[in-house]
Amino acid sequence: MSTTTAQGLDFSRLVITKTDSPKPLLPSDKLQFGRSFTDHILTAEWDSQTGWAAPVIEPYKALTLDPAASVFHYAFCCFEGMKAYKDADGRVRLFRPEKNIQRLNDSAARVALPTFDEDVVLKLLSEYTKLESRWVPEGRGFALYLRPTLVGTSPDLSVSRPGSALLYVIASPVGNYFGSSGVKAISLQAASSPVRAWPGGAGNKKVGGNYAPTIVATEQATHQGWQQVLWLLGDPAVPEEQYMTECGTMNLFVAWINPETKSKELLTAPLDGTILPGITRDSILALARERLVPQGWTVTERRVYMHEVKTASEQGRLLEVFGSGTALVVSPIRSISWNGGVIDCGLPEGQEIGDFARTAKNWLEDIQYGVDEHPWSVVV
Amino acid sequence: MSTTTAQGLDFSRLVITKTDSPKPLLPSDKLQFGRSFTDHILTAEWDSQTGWAAPVIEPYKALTLDPAASVFHYAFCCFEGMKAYKDADGRVRLFRPEKNIQRLNDSAARVALPTFDEDVVLKLLSEYTKLESRWVPEGRGFALYLRPTLVGTSPDLSVSRPGSALLYVIASPVGNYFGSSGVKAISLQAASSPVRAWPGGAGNKKVGGNYAPTIVATEQATHQGWQQVLWLLGDPAVPEEQYMTECGTMNLFVAWINPETKSKELLTAPLDGTILPGITRDSILALARERLVPQGWTVTERRVYMHEVKTASEQGRLLEVFGSGTALVVSPIRSISWNGGVIDCGLPEGQEIGDFARTAKNWLEDIQYGVDEHPWSVVV
Repeated sequence: MSTTTAQGLDFSRLVITKTDSPKPLLPSDKLQFGRSFTDHILTAEWDSQTGWAAPVIEPYKALTLDPAASVFHYAFCCFEGMKAYKDADGRVRLFRPEKNIQRLNDSAARVALPTFDEDVVLKLLSEYTKLESRWVPEGRGFALYLRPTLVGTSPDLSVSRPGSALLYVIASPVGNYFGSSGVKAISLQAASSPVRAWPGGAGNKKVGGNYAPTIVATEQATHQGWQQVLWLLGDPAVPEEQYMTECGTMNLFVAWINPETKSKELLTAPLDGTILPGITRDSILALARERLVPQGWTVTERRVYMHEVKTASEQGRLLEVFGSGTALVVSPIRSISWNGGVIDCGLPEGQEIGDFARTAKNWLEDIQYGVDEHPWSVVV
Repeated sequence: MSTTTAQGLDFSRLVITKTDSPKPLLPSDKLQFGRSFTDHILTAEWDSQTGWAAPVIEPYKALTLDPAASVFHYAFCCFEGMKAYKDADGRVRLFRPEKNIQRLNDSAARVALPTFDEDVVLKLLSEYTKLESRWVPEGRGFALYLRPTLVGTSPDLSVSRPGSALLYVIASPVGNYFGSSGVKAISLQAASSPVRAWPGGAGNKKVGGNYAPTIVATEQATHQGWQQVLWLLGDPAVPEEQYMTECGTMNLFVAWINPETKSKELLTAPLDGTILPGITRDSILALARERLVPQGWTVTERRVYMHEVKTASEQGRLLEVFGSGTALVVSPIRSISWNGGVIDCGLPEGQEIGDFARTAKNWLEDIQYGVDEHPWSVVV
């Protein structure tokens, strides 16, 4: 494969064709995550011989692919999830977008899809977001969800690197997940089988193959009254060895009183290759280190074993457990079903979010919506 | 989701529209695996509310999908690989096709895609194969490769069961992989990281997500002079714990002199959830049990550890190692790079295939091409 003559992705070649028939905006209370889309799609085709074609923003359209296209057979696909927020002055803001674009490149490399100049994709994404700015809903909790996606398109059934690919971005206006009722704590069913990801797998990349195999287990948990699966690793036969990785599609945090130091500690799984390096996770860790460590907290990335959480709960040392992700920022956990029992995660009855989770959510939303002027928030 | 009123897949509703412009056949020596396709595609759409629409055989065509279709984002996709063979009387034969269709259903269930009546899909597949029979090349080693595929199509970014899906079959005439030069033994690079599959994963299903993450490691092995990766499980830091799962996209067999019984033994990994339940694997096991056990062989499904294979090689007890799969039937292995050394797999210099692998290949091809009349071979 010659890459010396292949064309790089070039922002200056961007061609924009605006729609003649803009769709009506949905009212804020009708927004469903990922069900309705904006007027346009951003696309850039790649070919192993010629490189990146001119990027295009054009009216939202269906994709036409050969039935032998490699994405349909071997899951050559990766994506990102990020949001554009409207601030009080009506400006549109992205949150640490360079982190998403960098992760998309990392994901692409892991599944043999073409990588790209991240600055160019960032500029394309900003241009696209600006063009769609009327679709960014107003109000805290509301946002325009952006979905950069990269798929292998070559019509070739050999199990090998795709010879062509398509990078595209679509966008869906999203509402306040819990509506007017505010945050709701959820409960988890811990599962050591099936496993979501494993050492040496692709669980630390945002590739399609990590998702489809999680649905059936999640449905089973839901049928049994739990809202999400807590994905464990460690021998399914040895409860003492089981540790937390992610829950649903979120990273997981535990706040507790450390049994040795008797001080408050924020714990989360380390980036050991089995969890997604979440940008919300990273942001919470950074802000906690900046703002809570001076108040006596410890912030620790290490394996968190289920038996530790259970013991902490029994001893009244478990303060909070919550998930983190782009969709909800934080998602408080009320209880976890594990090893034949139920672990109470420390939320008082009638309270749906713990003090630290609420604080972290406010920190991040203040930055995302431009209340707290911060370098992580970028006006497009 | 109501399934009570949803329509089942119905063979009697099949609509056939033949092409007006049949493509010219490629000469046998120009056939490349999975690169050229026949005149028609078989499709059947599924919707969670209405069930299966009428199946259609129509001219080969591109698929048109919403950019939010779930297959592009979460790898809702699974497939099968099977072949149609032409016998000496010009009849077209399938090999144990019901096993492929059953496995497709198993794969579909694992990744929350709709399941189907296997008898109906088998009849549809037979009808399609009959219609494309001019595309089945003549000659041993030649076949029409059939690719049943099932993908999630619903334009919905929520990580949940697809509300719609498309089952389709395309076909590619395939040649003798090694051309006129006959079988060539390959050499493997054993790798305990990255990991192809894991207990509790989806490695025992033919789902897309198992494939894309294997490409980079395979390319790296190739650049270092090895043709395929031998996928190991077991602690990467503890060579004694490392055992074989698959190689490339094939199951793996070892023939050796058992160190205790001093008798010939055929070994392969058990169906423990981490390897694909290969139909070639199953067929070789069944025929070996029927035809070799009476001659004093033992046939064993168990974990095969790398150190055992290395020791057997050093002691002159390693007879053969070979992969098995639909593409090549058997693929002999000359050597395996592992733990800083190279294991000689017992093939004499200048010989490209061992006695047992050749025997197994002949057994299966005799059945597939109708030389040996056998219930596994089904005339369409």
